[in-house]
Amino acid sequence: MIGIDWGTTSFRAFRVGRDGTIRDRRAAPKGILNVPDGRFGDTLREEIGPWLAAGEDRVILSGMIGSRQGWIEAPYLPCPAGPAELAGALVDIGFDWARVKLVPGLSGTDEAGVAEVMRGEETQVLGVAPLLRDGGIACLPGTHSKWVRVVDGRIVGFTTHMTGETFGALRGHTILGRMMRDGPADGPSFDAGVTRSADPGGLLHHLFGVRALALADRLAEADSPAYLSGILIGHEVRAALAQAAGAVVQVIGAPELTALYARTIAACGGYAERHDGEAAARGLALVAEHAQWT
Amino acid sequence: MIGIDWGTTSFRAFRVGRDGTIRDRRAAPKGILNVPDGRFGDTLREEIGPWLAAGEDRVILSGMIGSRQGWIEAPYLPCPAGPAELAGALVDIGFDWARVKLVPGLSGTDEAGVAEVMRGEETQVLGVAPLLRDGGIACLPGTHSKWVRVVDGRIVGFTTHMTGETFGALRGHTILGRMMRDGPADGPSFDAGVTRSADPGGLLHHLFGVRALALADRLAEADSPAYLSGILIGHEVRAALAQAAGAVVQVIGAPELTALYARTIAACGGYAERHDGEAAARGLALVAEHAQWT
Repeated sequence: MIGIDWGTTSFRAFRVGRDGTIRDRRAAPKGILNVPDGRFGDTLREEIGPWLAAGEDRVILSGMIGSRQGWIEAPYLPCPAGPAELAGALVDIGFDWARVKLVPGLSGTDEAGVAEVMRGEETQVLGVAPLLRDGGIACLPGTHSKWVRVVDGRIVGFTTHMTGETFGALRGHTILGRMMRDGPADGPSFDAGVTRSADPGGLLHHLFGVRALALADRLAEADSPAYLSGILIGHEVRAALAQAAGAVVQVIGAPELTALYARTIAACGGYAERHDGEAAARGLALVAEHAQWT
Repeated sequence: MIGIDWGTTSFRAFRVGRDGTIRDRRAAPKGILNVPDGRFGDTLREEIGPWLAAGEDRVILSGMIGSRQGWIEAPYLPCPAGPAELAGALVDIGFDWARVKLVPGLSGTDEAGVAEVMRGEETQVLGVAPLLRDGGIACLPGTHSKWVRVVDGRIVGFTTHMTGETFGALRGHTILGRMMRDGPADGPSFDAGVTRSADPGGLLHHLFGVRALALADRLAEADSPAYLSGILIGHEVRAALAQAAGAVVQVIGAPELTALYARTIAACGGYAERHDGEAAARGLALVAEHAQWT
């Protein structure tokens, strides 16, 4: 079968064998926002045509491709949900080159009852075996980071943190950015920012401290982005760990980012394991298996 | 004498009687960033020429006019500092129409030892009599809000929160702004944001909730700015009060803003009194008096 993690800005396809191993992979900058005029079928054929020609005829999709801006809008499935529930809620897409099914996103609420939604992350989470087996917490860092709680093989709830997007707005459009130039993302100033996030005064005070340290010649322009990043990720991780005492955090995503998060989680007294984005392929294969579609 | 609070974007002058009462006032959008080619002397003469002609010959200035971008850079005076210390550190400015002196800004450190500076707020704080008499906490809300600790008539330390500027960056340059239009700043959605700031999950999570509520049709576009404002001010106030248990907070500034802060402080279990920006005039008069310059 073919599994595709089709997000807002990226398209990643996997050819998965009957035993669940990845036999081939393709990636392209063809996220749903980059596909003109809703030509999703054409894009799919261009990207995976050779695999279809080689005999594959089942395609399973996850991610923002199932949103209102995507190919077909799949209603959110409420939590708790695991592979069986997702398999039972697959949405068929009419496509004349193969059978195509779509994994719906999930809806839930945070601890205070505020609505949350996700599309794509649920599939990556289900691709991390220790989570399904033992339960625990998954963290998917990024523009909108997700922290996902898994109990007895099902996702029971999740919270989103606007960390990456807040970093971009602060760097690009406040006085902080005027004292920054590009520098290493993972140097000691990142750790200094994480340490700072434990100080009293709160995030809005710590943000101003980036400027205060620069004014006092105690923070170089090239170190400032990593320091700001450490402050923001430190605040995110501390708040999330406060709700998940003692859990192992499975961090899923691009290696540069999961490395920073694992380091932060350790600095905050937690324990993290790292997984790359190919977790999506295993999650897609698992859902297909539950749909008896392998 | 004439006292002038000369900031980045505004110029506010007061003619103050020997008994400290304000006899006249002028305001103009002639902050230091709006004065071309460093023509500060000309601006001063244009604005207060009539008062000088009427016999005033002493002018005392505070605010960003004493910064590197201003008329003359006055070195920061370290905390603790009160009216006597500020009077002893006045900086003379050469000006042929009157004697002009400049109140320096203050430097200090927050509880964690990170450097902090301010220019202008120190003078407003000293203009609030209950603070000088009984000590306590002053809050000066704005782009960069200041929380100032006063003990025995002197400013001992302060912290800055980047609340107003963060609001602007989030509204103007993130996905949150796309779901907003102008609406009342002080409606029930402001209070809902303040309440939200007490929930678990942290500020970066609460920010995403603005979008989540809007997606769930539980937050109208015109209510979203006030809700975001309530979240941010709520986080600022909770973090600041955590370091100032039981203190009365003297909130100084424009009435619309001090009303929102006083409301938030009350909602967070604190007690606030409100003062307008004319506190600057009384602070300037007090420093002049200590300099035996009245």
